Amino acid sequence: MGVMNLLFGRPLASSEDQGERITPSQGVPTFGLDALSSAAYGPEAALTILLPLGLAGVRYIAPLTAAIVVLLLIVYFSYRQTIAAYPGGGGSYTVAKENLGPGAGLLAAAALMIDYLLNVAVGISAGIGALVSAVPWLQKFTLPMCLVVLAILTIVNLRGVRDAGSAFIAPTYLFVGTLGVVIAIGVFQIIRTGGHPHALIPPPHAPVAAVGAVGLWLLLRAFASGCTALTGVEAVSNGVQAFREPVVPAARKTLTIIVLTLVFLLGGIATLVYFYGIAATDPGQPGYQSVLSLVAAAVAGRGVLYGLTMFSVLLVLCLSANTSFADFPRLCRTVALDNYLPHSLTLRGRRLVYSQGIWVLSLFAAVLLIIFGGVTDRLIPLFAVGAFLAFTLSQAGMVVHWRKNSGSLSHMLVNGVGAAATGVTVLVVVAAKFTQGAWVVVLLLPAAIVLMARVRRHYRLVTRETEAKGSLLGTNNQHPPIVIVPIDQWNAAAQKTLRFAMTLSPEVHAVHVACGEDDSIAAQWNTMVEQPALEAGAPVPRLITLRSPYRLVLQPVVDYVLQIEKENRHRTVAVAISTMVERHWYHYFLHNQRSEVLTAMLLLGGDRRINIINVPWYLRA
Amino acid sequence: MGVMNLLFGRPLASSEDQGERITPSQGVPTFGLDALSSAAYGPEAALTILLPLGLAGVRYIAPLTAAIVVLLLIVYFSYRQTIAAYPGGGGSYTVAKENLGPGAGLLAAAALMIDYLLNVAVGISAGIGALVSAVPWLQKFTLPMCLVVLAILTIVNLRGVRDAGSAFIAPTYLFVGTLGVVIAIGVFQIIRTGGHPHALIPPPHAPVAAVGAVGLWLLLRAFASGCTALTGVEAVSNGVQAFREPVVPAARKTLTIIVLTLVFLLGGIATLVYFYGIAATDPGQPGYQSVLSLVAAAVAGRGVLYGLTMFSVLLVLCLSANTSFADFPRLCRTVALDNYLPHSLTLRGRRLVYSQGIWVLSLFAAVLLIIFGGVTDRLIPLFAVGAFLAFTLSQAGMVVHWRKNSGSLSHMLVNGVGAAATGVTVLVVVAAKFTQGAWVVVLLLPAAIVLMARVRRHYRLVTRETEAKGSLLGTNNQHPPIVIVPIDQWNAAAQKTLRFAMTLSPEVHAVHVACGEDDSIAAQWNTMVEQPALEAGAPVPRLITLRSPYRLVLQPVVDYVLQIEKENRHRTVAVAISTMVERHWYHYFLHNQRSEVLTAMLLLGGDRRINIINVPWYLRA
Repeated sequence: MGVMNLLFGRPLASSEDQGERITPSQGVPTFGLDALSSAAYGPEAALTILLPLGLAGVRYIAPLTAAIVVLLLIVYFSYRQTIAAYPGGGGSYTVAKENLGPGAGLLAAAALMIDYLLNVAVGISAGIGALVSAVPWLQKFTLPMCLVVLAILTIVNLRGVRDAGSAFIAPTYLFVGTLGVVIAIGVFQIIRTGGHPHALIPPPHAPVAAVGAVGLWLLLRAFASGCTALTGVEAVSNGVQAFREPVVPAARKTLTIIVLTLVFLLGGIATLVYFYGIAATDPGQPGYQSVLSLVAAAVAGRGVLYGLTMFSVLLVLCLSANTSFADFPRLCRTVALDNYLPHSLTLRGRRLVYSQGIWVLSLFAAVLLIIFGGVTDRLIPLFAVGAFLAFTLSQAGMVVHWRKNSGSLSHMLVNGVGAAATGVTVLVVVAAKFTQGAWVVVLLLPAAIVLMARVRRHYRLVTRETEAKGSLLGTNNQHPPIVIVPIDQWNAAAQKTLRFAMTLSPEVHAVHVACGEDDSIAAQWNTMVEQPALEAGAPVPRLITLRSPYRLVLQPVVDYVLQIEKENRHRTVAVAISTMVERHWYHYFLHNQRSEVLTAMLLLGGDRRINIINVPWYLRA
Repeated sequence: MGVMNLLFGRPLASSEDQGERITPSQGVPTFGLDALSSAAYGPEAALTILLPLGLAGVRYIAPLTAAIVVLLLIVYFSYRQTIAAYPGGGGSYTVAKENLGPGAGLLAAAALMIDYLLNVAVGISAGIGALVSAVPWLQKFTLPMCLVVLAILTIVNLRGVRDAGSAFIAPTYLFVGTLGVVIAIGVFQIIRTGGHPHALIPPPHAPVAAVGAVGLWLLLRAFASGCTALTGVEAVSNGVQAFREPVVPAARKTLTIIVLTLVFLLGGIATLVYFYGIAATDPGQPGYQSVLSLVAAAVAGRGVLYGLTMFSVLLVLCLSANTSFADFPRLCRTVALDNYLPHSLTLRGRRLVYSQGIWVLSLFAAVLLIIFGGVTDRLIPLFAVGAFLAFTLSQAGMVVHWRKNSGSLSHMLVNGVGAAATGVTVLVVVAAKFTQGAWVVVLLLPAAIVLMARVRRHYRLVTRETEAKGSLLGTNNQHPPIVIVPIDQWNAAAQKTLRFAMTLSPEVHAVHVACGEDDSIAAQWNTMVEQPALEAGAPVPRLITLRSPYRLVLQPVVDYVLQIEKENRHRTVAVAISTMVERHWYHYFLHNQRSEVLTAMLLLGGDRRINIINVPWYLRA
């Protein structure tokens, strides 16, 4: 257990729950990394769509960012209300389920789960991608590096939510700090120069406009792409119970810090882009640089601040996956409590986190990373559909919630506008990215819902069938069972098994399968078994010898057991099997696995009245 | 079972053994393909070593082939005697073990096993290699084609020895026939032209001699390489029991046919090489052609006969692996009967062959083929060491055998000369190929011997420890066991398990692990269990509730069982575990595997007095 303790920390007692809970300053890195890191790619995503407009496109960043910030604030107010209304956590799933019905709840849950999974793969691979483009000789280690980051995130999160929060405080504040300094310097320069700042390193010229008129569809697509900056805002609402009591103010404070910081970063970057006239570069072309790199270089040159900023961006992209690790297991647990997912997802592991969910997320993310070789660009279009679907359902649910609980009109209005805005965004995102991969999500969602519904059906069936019925003791079924003992050869293990069988029941049948002419057991039976039993005054076990012309050694036993079971409708039957306990894996090859195979044959082929008794035999060595 | 019957044939009863045995005409393809196919590469191997001598080297093929044929005949006479002396089969292993001691036997067995395994990989890849060099666009399918051939050989051999023999009669006789016609035409031309035949397609000029004087070491190496033609001659002696009664004449007749055919082919090819002046071409260089292709083209031109000959060579190379499939399982069985290998190798499968050995051989060969990507050139130097080591040990053993059984001096002399000649060959082969890979065999042999000795030690230990001792019934141990029933929640499955436990013993402890505050089982115990038991006049099971602050659900049960066991030194303990039988693999994810894990924990962590009772619960659906 030494290694386990070192890796995962000492086990925590259930009573230590309060000590594991987090403060808002730990909550920001735990739940906020996904949202904050999107400042690094949201503006770029919008600017890339605007490329065909040339330099004119850059001007549109101001109204677009304003629209995105307004939507962000609507979503923020909505989730503030959700946190207060559902302090048990569960976010969009709970809100949608309670107010719109189980179908809507499952849709929200499935959408979020897919999004969380994608977030892990895309976040890690974006971070490592940034590293590799800075240090090209690392290229060939892309996949191993992605998997190492995934392993670190998995272990840190298995150590408990408090450890994860503490571990990622430094990178988060480094990211916000360096980017804040860049924005502050830039804004100061803009003011000093009356809106015409001098770029220390001038950005490349914007391409010549390929499109003359500005189409509505283009702007909508740019808006939809920029909206990826909003993903991750729902995270806090799923994890309210991770905070110290009183949970609601702590969770709300955390959400407020995250959203205000994000607004500051988005607004600041948009301002710099606008005044420094920075167009995106084409990611498919040589000479590509990220918008953030262009902005930082224009404002601060390629010095220490630039390096530090880029390093913190890279780190935060990698760690943005942490939000998924904090939320996915909690969401799965909430859904599993409603029987829609395996119950093992509801169990708290040694550090009081829902370890199974962490393992599942890590496993699926590893599969995605391996399939795509650590470069998950093709997964990006699948992204954000899930988050916005969850936003929409959650806010529509809140509208119903206020109506049911006679909330104020202003509450209802905020959520109604939010639902409409995010709903439109879902449609735009799906339409704009349908052929690039969003169709996968559209197919996956109903499949996931059907699967979850079937899981619940299975659990209900099990509950119904295993319901305790009738009295404990039937009237006529308390006879000792008929115990059947398969005997391969007469040795101490067979002797021990037979002896144990005789303590259980006076009716013991020893069964021997003879493949050849060897009848040594029948010859020994009288002296080895019958005489001693008579002398001890015990009932004498019968020996049944079964011939097997085709050299099958197990099927004749199974046939005999089934026949005995059929002939004794009101008795239970037990088969006592001698099992060699192998202490070394390589002994597996030296002994037959007949006891395991016979057990499986009897359990799968037998009726409900056959029980298996394993009598172990241990080698001393 | 329909597919099984189609693939492997209907099961054969043990009494059908005689019908499965083979005649000499089936014996030649079964045991002879390895030896016969070596006519295709033995002479080439010698000629390649002679390349530095230029055309002068070609002249040496005559004395070299003569020496090889003499050695072949010595080995032949030796194995004729072995067959008669050891009609039970087992060849070199049995002879060496009986006469030189178990160590020598194991050395012979290990050497042969390694050789058989290499023969499968190298044979198949040589055949597919020949096909690929004829049809280059098949190159990229090399590995899949190798594995398909391996699968076919595996299935045909699993169908039984008679089926395998019959299946490969046609290719064997096609090979001998076409090559025989080529040799006949060639020899006729040589005689007609008085020793100066005209090559229809002249072979490429022999390279200019790089070495002036002929060194003894070069000749020895050429001899050692040419001796690969002898591999496979021991095969018949391992499989004497595969023949119809009387086995000895049938096996001898088969061996005679194989050896005479091989002598004819080797002599014929050497004659044609000598008189047509055919030097080998360098296998590493462009323009490489096999010696057999050069010979056939020189004698018959590139017509139908050439094509047919090359096709049959390719086929027979692929099928030469069949000798291994016929012999390896028999050898393993003989060794396993002496407890040096897992006993499962001695079991006859549905078609009366030793199926396990076939599977093992197939599996290892597949691994080799996959590791080397279907191109096993680098394994060739490992080859032949094993075969000659086995020859040497077998003949040395026969010398001792004759001395013990006062055999004639001529018998002893034949075997003595054979042992000396093959012994020298082993030394030359190992010395000549040591750095190219023969060292692997030199390392593998002792490792294999140590492994087999340890297997036997383990089996002896098991036999000694499981020896039936004392009387069946001890004086004071026939009390019913203490039965412990872990109960997770009160439902029909728990009810069934408890009810069954109560039929086995009056002393039943129900154990419930409580992780939280929920004590619903304790609250129900009186009404659900105690009352009904009292009413039925049965002993009342006790409920023990165990607290688990760290949420472990199994360890407290194990601890309790061990404690009960410790407190009751003279009682047996049984743990009755309710097991959900999962009829679909995907249900695995929906239920915990606690019953399996608990079973493993109790068996591995418990003492000798804990038995496990599985009470299955079935879902109707």
